[in-house]
Amino acid sequence: MGEQPDFDGWTCPLPLRDHDRVTIGHGGGGRLSAELVEHLFMPAFGVDPSAEMRDSALVDVAGGRLAFSTDSYVVRPLFFPGGCIGDLAVNGTVNDVAMSGAQIVALSAGFILEEGLEFTVLGQIAVEMGKAAEVAGVRIVTGDTKVVDAGLADGVYINTSGIGLIPDGVDIRPRRATPGDTIIISGPIGLHGVAVMSKREGIEFGTEILSDSAPLNGLVAAMLAASTDIHVLRDPTRGGVAASFCEIAATAHVGIEFEETAMPVPEQVASACSFLGLDAISIANEGKLVAFVPPEIVDAVMSAMHDHQFGRDAVVVGTVTADHPGVVVGRTSFGARRILDLPLGEQLPRIC
Amino acid sequence: MGEQPDFDGWTCPLPLRDHDRVTIGHGGGGRLSAELVEHLFMPAFGVDPSAEMRDSALVDVAGGRLAFSTDSYVVRPLFFPGGCIGDLAVNGTVNDVAMSGAQIVALSAGFILEEGLEFTVLGQIAVEMGKAAEVAGVRIVTGDTKVVDAGLADGVYINTSGIGLIPDGVDIRPRRATPGDTIIISGPIGLHGVAVMSKREGIEFGTEILSDSAPLNGLVAAMLAASTDIHVLRDPTRGGVAASFCEIAATAHVGIEFEETAMPVPEQVASACSFLGLDAISIANEGKLVAFVPPEIVDAVMSAMHDHQFGRDAVVVGTVTADHPGVVVGRTSFGARRILDLPLGEQLPRIC
Repeated sequence: MGEQPDFDGWTCPLPLRDHDRVTIGHGGGGRLSAELVEHLFMPAFGVDPSAEMRDSALVDVAGGRLAFSTDSYVVRPLFFPGGCIGDLAVNGTVNDVAMSGAQIVALSAGFILEEGLEFTVLGQIAVEMGKAAEVAGVRIVTGDTKVVDAGLADGVYINTSGIGLIPDGVDIRPRRATPGDTIIISGPIGLHGVAVMSKREGIEFGTEILSDSAPLNGLVAAMLAASTDIHVLRDPTRGGVAASFCEIAATAHVGIEFEETAMPVPEQVASACSFLGLDAISIANEGKLVAFVPPEIVDAVMSAMHDHQFGRDAVVVGTVTADHPGVVVGRTSFGARRILDLPLGEQLPRIC
Repeated sequence: MGEQPDFDGWTCPLPLRDHDRVTIGHGGGGRLSAELVEHLFMPAFGVDPSAEMRDSALVDVAGGRLAFSTDSYVVRPLFFPGGCIGDLAVNGTVNDVAMSGAQIVALSAGFILEEGLEFTVLGQIAVEMGKAAEVAGVRIVTGDTKVVDAGLADGVYINTSGIGLIPDGVDIRPRRATPGDTIIISGPIGLHGVAVMSKREGIEFGTEILSDSAPLNGLVAAMLAASTDIHVLRDPTRGGVAASFCEIAATAHVGIEFEETAMPVPEQVASACSFLGLDAISIANEGKLVAFVPPEIVDAVMSAMHDHQFGRDAVVVGTVTADHPGVVVGRTSFGARRILDLPLGEQLPRIC
């Protein structure tokens, strides 16, 4: 390469929704994000376009199977009801690793700090990371710090990467969603997104809504102890449960049917959504998971979930069907049906 | 935690050089960076203060030993003579993993994009990442993309994390520096830092100076094939060779003596440094390594390096001594001696 970017051989990867620049929506976890990965990063990195997209990658090494995952956290504000960017950065990556059924082994932490950030703020964030790691039973073993000029970086951005070991006999991935599977959600949804937004926008919704940020590795271990035949796990972060359902349906070429009334939407989240014109199932969570399990293990898995602090409100919300592959259908309380579409961008940016 | 940061139990971790805020120097890889890690991150993360600081962490898993490393790249400008942020992000983490003697297994890539970034720019960066990964023989297996508001993030920040497998019998770490060890540098130093700065500041130094950004995993494998008894490897990035020497001397409680005249400083780097009042041995490199090896394997290791494209200009520059533990001494061309000190911040910020 010379001094100037050399665009020889580079053609702008369309379809990128007719944009020629990055928009906020490209980071939202919806269809724009997926297109960016599919049409820009995967070809550039030489990744097989038929490769399965997952929360973590599978790496064979030293006779074991590792899950490897990375996530950057740019949440604004840095502190919000129920958590801060620090515990979010730990829990988010612990959960991504857990979604392949892996036991977390180690975390890394990369900081991009804004010049002028107060040490008391950074210290508090680091302390919350340490606490969250302790709760999850994992160590932050390696790290890196960069500092950028004042005005950049919103105080602090954090990247965490995690590696975990997948137990023998466990094969959890989106493509395993199978007609007949029962779909479980581990508890109330929408809390994290609404908590962050209410703090950011200074909106009060009566009772304070707290982020549900939590590590799910213990819950997953308890579920796997009940049965290793769990087909799919997913933490519905950006894009919420809706995006998770749409992506799994598309990846596994199956249909998904769910009961809108069965969705565990807390009253405060429902009223915040109604006030703001948002859809609770499209709002990010950070301490919930969606599980697809064959019918014969539903009772055992649900029982294990109900015995765990992060799964005690688990509910069955739907099933996988061979009808309408790739399409997600919700049945409303009036018996009507609506078809869910992967959101284009995101309703609430910068929430993780 | 409530809505506001709770500083109960949090005391500002002094000594942090009497700053109460993050300065650019805290990201420079010098003493301020080390203090931030030692006095803020390590206590917050519950890391044993006697733990050894390395370019990558050692993780025991599945019967093997893994090296795990992370680095964020915030270089400005994004494109510079000889490379761009994309190949830098791949090579930098490949090299950090290689410095423990590990064979790289997989890379992750986390992007923080500025709203409005042109896809042609992002595409070119991604293509260069893919090319660099191919040269290094590693796959980018997992990733994440966030988008922040226009005006933040300088276009793009990239975090890469890497995992590698450490071969049996290999034990490479700073603490193994031993009196009598010969110190080798793999080739000309200072090129990356001067290349980035010349582009950023619009300074011309006659002949164009190109970044030396390169993956060193192949060179390390060739060195290990010559002998597995290499004691220390280090890629002298931020803070340059000077910072690497100071950190290794302090960690291993040994003295280091080097010949200033033996340092492989290219003429263009020397003249740029003289023009700017910089010290070439404190300038960052991205495609060089420093090796500490016992005398009996020097010939074999040097021979292997000279046969490799990234080590053909390797030279011996000094030795480890039991005298003056923790102190690095350079002998100048006039027979004088100067004592090197770990730089406080960095001469050139935002070069990686």
